[in-house]
Amino acid sequence: MNTQISDLFARVREKRPLIHHITNYVTANDCANITIAAGGSPVMADAPEEVCEMVTFSNALVLNIGTPNKEQIESMLLAGGMANDQRIPIVLDPVGVGATSYRTESAQRLLDELKVTILKGNAGEIGVLAGSVEAYMRGVDSHGVSGDMVKTAQQFANRESLTVVVSGAADIVTDGNRILLVENGHPMLGNISGTGCMAASVIGVFAAEENDAVIASAAALAAFGIAGERAADGARGPFSFKTALFDEMASLKPEDLAVGARITPQ
Amino acid sequence: MNTQISDLFARVREKRPLIHHITNYVTANDCANITIAAGGSPVMADAPEEVCEMVTFSNALVLNIGTPNKEQIESMLLAGGMANDQRIPIVLDPVGVGATSYRTESAQRLLDELKVTILKGNAGEIGVLAGSVEAYMRGVDSHGVSGDMVKTAQQFANRESLTVVVSGAADIVTDGNRILLVENGHPMLGNISGTGCMAASVIGVFAAEENDAVIASAAALAAFGIAGERAADGARGPFSFKTALFDEMASLKPEDLAVGARITPQ
Amino acid sequence: MNTQISDLFARVREKRPLIHHITNYVTANDCANITIAAGGSPVMADAPEEVCEMVTFSNALVLNIGTPNKEQIESMLLAGGMANDQRIPIVLDPVGVGATSYRTESAQRLLDELKVTILKGNAGEIGVLAGSVEAYMRGVDSHGVSGDMVKTAQQFANRESLTVVVSGAADIVTDGNRILLVENGHPMLGNISGTGCMAASVIGVFAAEENDAVIASAAALAAFGIAGERAADGARGPFSFKTALFDEMASLKPEDLAVGARITPQ
Repeated sequence: MNTQISDLFARVREKRPLIHHITNYVTANDCANITIAAGGSPVMADAPEEVCEMVTFSNALVLNIGTPNKEQIESMLLAGGMANDQRIPIVLDPVGVGATSYRTESAQRLLDELKVTILKGNAGEIGVLAGSVEAYMRGVDSHGVSGDMVKTAQQFANRESLTVVVSGAADIVTDGNRILLVENGHPMLGNISGTGCMAASVIGVFAAEENDAVIASAAALAAFGIAGERAADGARGPFSFKTALFDEMASLKPEDLAVGARITPQ
Repeated sequence: MNTQISDLFARVREKRPLIHHITNYVTANDCANITIAAGGSPVMADAPEEVCEMVTFSNALVLNIGTPNKEQIESMLLAGGMANDQRIPIVLDPVGVGATSYRTESAQRLLDELKVTILKGNAGEIGVLAGSVEAYMRGVDSHGVSGDMVKTAQQFANRESLTVVVSGAADIVTDGNRILLVENGHPMLGNISGTGCMAASVIGVFAAEENDAVIASAAALAAFGIAGERAADGARGPFSFKTALFDEMASLKPEDLAVGARITPQ
Repeated sequence: MNTQISDLFARVREKRPLIHHITNYVTANDCANITIAAGGSPVMADAPEEVCEMVTFSNALVLNIGTPNKEQIESMLLAGGMANDQRIPIVLDPVGVGATSYRTESAQRLLDELKVTILKGNAGEIGVLAGSVEAYMRGVDSHGVSGDMVKTAQQFANRESLTVVVSGAADIVTDGNRILLVENGHPMLGNISGTGCMAASVIGVFAAEENDAVIASAAALAAFGIAGERAADGARGPFSFKTALFDEMASLKPEDLAVGARITPQ
């Protein structure tokens, strides 16, 4: 698999896919910069007047409900419909689902009305959408969770016919059939805002160039995780770590991914 | 007092309070990251459909009118009402008050309709709200001001029954009765955008764990100021300073606060 | 000319002009910080209730359609009308024009209804507005372009009676009569999001203190480009480069600009 993912990464670097984001205003700059560092080209646009046309130029669509509002959700539905028509992948990051019924209903509506390719969340967010945990929240970054997450993710992926990514110390990637664990990453990724959003952007970049959403997701998470591991070396705190995270992502080579990826089939 | 504030900081680090922000899109990322670095957990949400529910999970509410609009002010009123019901503290940062009548009226409306716990602004902003200076503005970061600011702040705090924080070379903290001066900080804090907003976030983090708003505000300002002092060492310019500011805030220990705080009762 | 631009830069540093931005939420923080680093004071405000009043305090207005929406375009028209009345310069950055008809129509409407002082875009954006290229887009940062760009820019500047800036390896600045090439800069400026937006902010800062829009634009681009050249020294990747870019912009002196500017009349 490591040859496969390093080839994919080389393709990303060569093709420079355009990733359309409809995302929150807190981490939009981070998402734009990590998209560039990973090898893609970002565009952020959320006006209903233009989102569909923008999708026609794009190679993937990333939807993130970090700071949702009514008009933005409508734009996500419009853009997502066009993405489905154009057969480009949709990555959905249901930030904070379970915290408010508005977020839960918005994410549910996106899942119901669109064919989402990859759903990426933490254990709490995926648990809420899968119906396995109650709405419980401790910040949008950390959720309490119970039960066997791998099984939950697998069943949910099967039921919804999509690829589920559960971020954590070991990330779970499953389409209901295959299950991969990705063990790259570093605890310092949890000390800054936006690393979850950035991971979704990197997944979008890789999914733009690879139809196998399980492989694309695992490769993206491994790449981002390796950048995090390298960035932690010599970081004196969260922001020097963040600086290094972008630097390392940009300098990561396909062969580094082949060597450093810790992806294990279950 | 230094034992009291270092105990408070230890409590913050242990409890990791959730700080709900309704804030501007310019410095939202900085506010999220400084909240984490200070020991809290940030959530940004401003849709009227969800702000009240988000408050029920939160330990403090920070309202910042840096880029106000009609819907956002309505959401602040909704969230603030719920914060009052839930008896969690509200920190109001009336950015740019006095620059436009819209900002002045919006801030005034928030003060009138909500029970704000802590009002934090620079001398010009507080002066405008206190009625002691004319609407005068030179950028949102620097205001002309005249008169005895300590007295103005004290009288205003008394009249409005809240704690007033006036940021400056020496920060003034007063509830109308007690007056504390906080002399931590560094001039480089004035060379980047968003340090005023970040200070309000840190105050929110400390106020979430301490009912005495005067102590919470002074402790937060001292902690943020010490981080600024340390960050200035070796900074080559405003952005390497900013990087170090987050790093230093994250590595600051309760005992550092006890030793480094320069808080003087008046 | 180098004495003229270093005198201008000294004036900027002394006067600290207030630059009102109506801009996108992705790079707003970068624009605020580069404005400060260049010697200005930023204010971001986009509510229709306050934009006109904010303009009365401001020394230049920067309009950027990176994440446009209906209300924001209306606010740009309101603020721009007031800027014209007050005779302060307007810098328009038509981000992504040509990507969607909504962006093209919005930019066209701003050009039609306002007297824009300086229009700054990349070759694709200017080409689309000048009618010399078809709507073609590859990310908002890179456009395909054909034809003699200098001639296109010159004719367009003449027709529209404004100063046109075409960013590129060599930037073109022309009012239809004079043509300047600015050859400062570094390829690393292309590896981060927002450098185009930042360049427009710096142009706003310089145009606030210099009525000759050709000189102001060239001086600003040279200053920003020199900061980029210096920042590239020792940068380990895009984000350490970005950190250094702000640091270098802040420490740049008028005499550095006189020595380092590579501005050539055509």
